[in-house]
Amino acid sequence: MDSKNKETSRNSMFPNLPPSSPVIVHNPYLGGLKEDILYHLSLGTGTHNLPALFGDVKFVCVGGSARRMKEFIEHIAAELGIQDPKSNYPNICAGTDRYAMYKVGPVLSVSHGIGIPSISIMLHELIKLLHHARCTDVTIIRIGTSGGIGLEPGTVVVTKQSVDAKLVPKFEQLILGELVVRDTDLDYGLAEELLRSSKELGQFNTVMGNTMCTLDFYEGQGRLDGAFCLYTEEDKHKYLTKAREAGVCNIEMESAAFAAMCKLSGLRAAVVCTTLVDRLKGDQLNISHDVLHSYQQRPQILVGYYIKKQIKAREAIPK
Amino acid sequence: MDSKNKETSRNSMFPNLPPSSPVIVHNPYLGGLKEDILYHLSLGTGTHNLPALFGDVKFVCVGGSARRMKEFIEHIAAELGIQDPKSNYPNICAGTDRYAMYKVGPVLSVSHGIGIPSISIMLHELIKLLHHARCTDVTIIRIGTSGGIGLEPGTVVVTKQSVDAKLVPKFEQLILGELVVRDTDLDYGLAEELLRSSKELGQFNTVMGNTMCTLDFYEGQGRLDGAFCLYTEEDKHKYLTKAREAGVCNIEMESAAFAAMCKLSGLRAAVVCTTLVDRLKGDQLNISHDVLHSYQQRPQILVGYYIKKQIKAREAIPK
Repeated sequence: MDSKNKETSRNSMFPNLPPSSPVIVHNPYLGGLKEDILYHLSLGTGTHNLPALFGDVKFVCVGGSARRMKEFIEHIAAELGIQDPKSNYPNICAGTDRYAMYKVGPVLSVSHGIGIPSISIMLHELIKLLHHARCTDVTIIRIGTSGGIGLEPGTVVVTKQSVDAKLVPKFEQLILGELVVRDTDLDYGLAEELLRSSKELGQFNTVMGNTMCTLDFYEGQGRLDGAFCLYTEEDKHKYLTKAREAGVCNIEMESAAFAAMCKLSGLRAAVVCTTLVDRLKGDQLNISHDVLHSYQQRPQILVGYYIKKQIKAREAIPK
Repeated sequence: MDSKNKETSRNSMFPNLPPSSPVIVHNPYLGGLKEDILYHLSLGTGTHNLPALFGDVKFVCVGGSARRMKEFIEHIAAELGIQDPKSNYPNICAGTDRYAMYKVGPVLSVSHGIGIPSISIMLHELIKLLHHARCTDVTIIRIGTSGGIGLEPGTVVVTKQSVDAKLVPKFEQLILGELVVRDTDLDYGLAEELLRSSKELGQFNTVMGNTMCTLDFYEGQGRLDGAFCLYTEEDKHKYLTKAREAGVCNIEMESAAFAAMCKLSGLRAAVVCTTLVDRLKGDQLNISHDVLHSYQQRPQILVGYYIKKQIKAREAIPK
């Protein structure tokens, strides 16, 4: 299948997409750079042939932990039957330890660290990378961990809407010291496809719901086990109950910036997080290593299954 | 020198400190936990003898990159003449890839990733660790990188005051959805001692000034080279000039939470960052790898020298 057909088949599957949807940057200064150094990825337009290295990317999966994103690329390689015979997936960003990046076929797997500032740097540079590489029709999915609200630990949540700690579906930023507010819409169609995929898989419970995105894990999420806790257990329960009533199923720390930035750059985006604890029942993550690991694998399994299905469907379209 | 004497000598050096200043937590629920799992450090009170492992810690250095914090522990071991004969400094947090931690003698070196949410998780768990380990009289220094304003790249900045993107010396957090504002005071005496140490060293230029702490590296710091830039070069220069006029010497992404949390827990805290670029002249980090590395080493060299001097001074006090 040549590159032109790939795009045709992709667009025939998603008729609502414009033909060959590009990755959009909004920066008039970018074109004027002699070279663009993607500093935190240890890549650049002057040192790397980005179209040759990344031009075929159609799926990007991002997650906090570098170790887990390497595990994901091994999983997806096995799913797609394109394992490296030596099972060697080098870290494309080996020149830095800020982020890690792996690639097999059309799938890129990138770590983003913890929190909005950390994912935001990675996404600025990733969006520029995909733009410089002239990628089209890219789907991006964050696979992560989260605290659940009123859900059995291990439940997977596909995010409907990302809301902030005040339960508002917006991403607030200070730009040149002024407040800028951006939408946190994700691709609802993609979320529904992922939910359907989980039903087909039938391996674990997956729900769709709102995800609260906070700037802190302890006080910012009402935990009672941080170094500081100047509220009561009752205050915490009131807050989490209010969140639950607003449709919040889980709490994590990156979805708002992820949703806002992907929307701005025209990427089809979804957030799929497993829940490690029911925050209505406790705060500490005291499950065994094996159970924890099996919960952490669930978003990988679901997204791996979805990507495989998408690629097979494209291959089935007559050329 | 036994543990009691160590404390006596430390306090005679800093007569303004209360005798054996402990590491303070503010959480009435912490005492009620059967065990405290420091999840993101892969440590805990039920699995590790924290007083035995960490009770002697007097200096903690934190920085974004795990690789650099390993480099720092090797540097400090050489400085203190207590190298491991096999030069093997195991990562104490090897059970996770979220943060890395190394220790030689009374010095702990911990990575914190990028941004306030990332450092905030690490500090909650580090403060609890130091508290559980019954550490006393701990000095904590963040050694990092930053963008300078009107400074020759490679200049080291010791932070006088951490200000936010609106130039206010406060740290704003949402706790249970409500705005909580905390002070970002650092230990001025410690900052002065570090500045004096740099003069003694005479290896590079060090200044004291305010540090702006932002939630983003690109738009949040007025860069013209992100995926999005919806302001002009003139807007950027106005903003940075206003910051400079308010005494801001450099911009980074962790100092506000670091200052606020260390103050709350009674830790003597300082921030020492090298500048990699003069933001009034450009945004991209396009210096050679070797120059970059030598700039990055400067806070390590300065803080290593300071710690060595402190330890020698204590040893010189008659027992």
